[in-house]
Amino acid sequence: MEKGIFITVEGPEGAGKTTIIGMLGEALQAEGYQVLLTREPGGIDIAEQIRNVILDKKNTKMDPRTEALLYAAARRQHLVEKVLPAIEQGYIVLCDRFIDSSLAYQGYARGLGIDDVFSINQFAIEGMMPKLTFYFDIDPKIGLERINRHKEREVNRLDLEDLEFHHKVREGYYQLMKEHPERIFKIDASKPIETVYKDAKSLLKKMIDQED
Amino acid sequence: MEKGIFITVEGPEGAGKTTIIGMLGEALQAEGYQVLLTREPGGIDIAEQIRNVILDKKNTKMDPRTEALLYAAARRQHLVEKVLPAIEQGYIVLCDRFIDSSLAYQGYARGLGIDDVFSINQFAIEGMMPKLTFYFDIDPKIGLERINRHKEREVNRLDLEDLEFHHKVREGYYQLMKEHPERIFKIDASKPIETVYKDAKSLLKKMIDQED
Repeated sequence: MEKGIFITVEGPEGAGKTTIIGMLGEALQAEGYQVLLTREPGGIDIAEQIRNVILDKKNTKMDPRTEALLYAAARRQHLVEKVLPAIEQGYIVLCDRFIDSSLAYQGYARGLGIDDVFSINQFAIEGMMPKLTFYFDIDPKIGLERINRHKEREVNRLDLEDLEFHHKVREGYYQLMKEHPERIFKIDASKPIETVYKDAKSLLKKMIDQED
Repeated sequence: MEKGIFITVEGPEGAGKTTIIGMLGEALQAEGYQVLLTREPGGIDIAEQIRNVILDKKNTKMDPRTEALLYAAARRQHLVEKVLPAIEQGYIVLCDRFIDSSLAYQGYARGLGIDDVFSINQFAIEGMMPKLTFYFDIDPKIGLERINRHKEREVNRLDLEDLEFHHKVREGYYQLMKEHPERIFKIDASKPIETVYKDAKSLLKKMIDQED
């Protein structure tokens, strides 16, 4: 491949995204591909600073539209400084969360509207949509239970949202899948991890083979 | 007036905006109006945090689109927490810089496009455009000379832009005036301060009398 491929992974915390992304990355590297695993803000200083504002537990007065604009700003900076240079150099980029998170969380679940949130994100990404998106689907209750088992993980402002909100987020992702069946593929994340990995791997390979 | 009025003041640093806004505020209060003088981020904690990211001199890698999204985010929070409550309570709000700054600086001078920058700002302000906007017009060279006389003022990242950029900003404001002659009024800020004040005051009074 002359140019790389941009792939995103979506789904709630506790769905096993990080684990599977790591496994996919290793497998691809073993096959000789250059791979970049990342997630916003991804160590990009400006994006980290923006993220700190979003996740600061003191910022309880943050308006949902402020939050959506900040996510778009951090996305822009991470894309420009980290993702695009890697794509240019032929890397397969696996990004944990991207535009669909904003569409599902802010656009759908917080009621700002998927179209309006898409529009500010379009300003941020200038058409740089992922070639392939995995949606790791899991019952929100099971996802949250999985998170709570990891006691060492710090609880942030977004974790405090109630279960109902996470159900709405899932509805949002379902709507996005309906609108973009050519791009977003559902992975049943309630299955054993080996099965989830195999499902993701086979989809990914099929797509890479088409690109080669 | 049951509801207040939202008025913005635009123009480069060194055009005398702050001085004139203070004089207008005093005059209106003397006539019995409730007046709020503000500017983004206006002491709103979340907006201040965002502003710190924008103006941090270390952030030289900041992409122009990141910057535009951050301004829109800070604008949103300042509007929701400070401007709208005051308007609801019947205040005349005089705001030093608002959406037109983003359109002239990011949209026009940085070349992101006035329409695209308007679109993300429309997401931020949800139609809450000012009733009246003063554009304090002055030759950028004279404006910068005036600033440099105030040695105690800290120089920030934006002051370091060259004169050519400030000329483009002025062109941007001229284009905005052409597109919105019913809202944006030019004040010749090269005149003596008493004249500038009188010009602004008479325009303001005319508009308030229409609202009453």
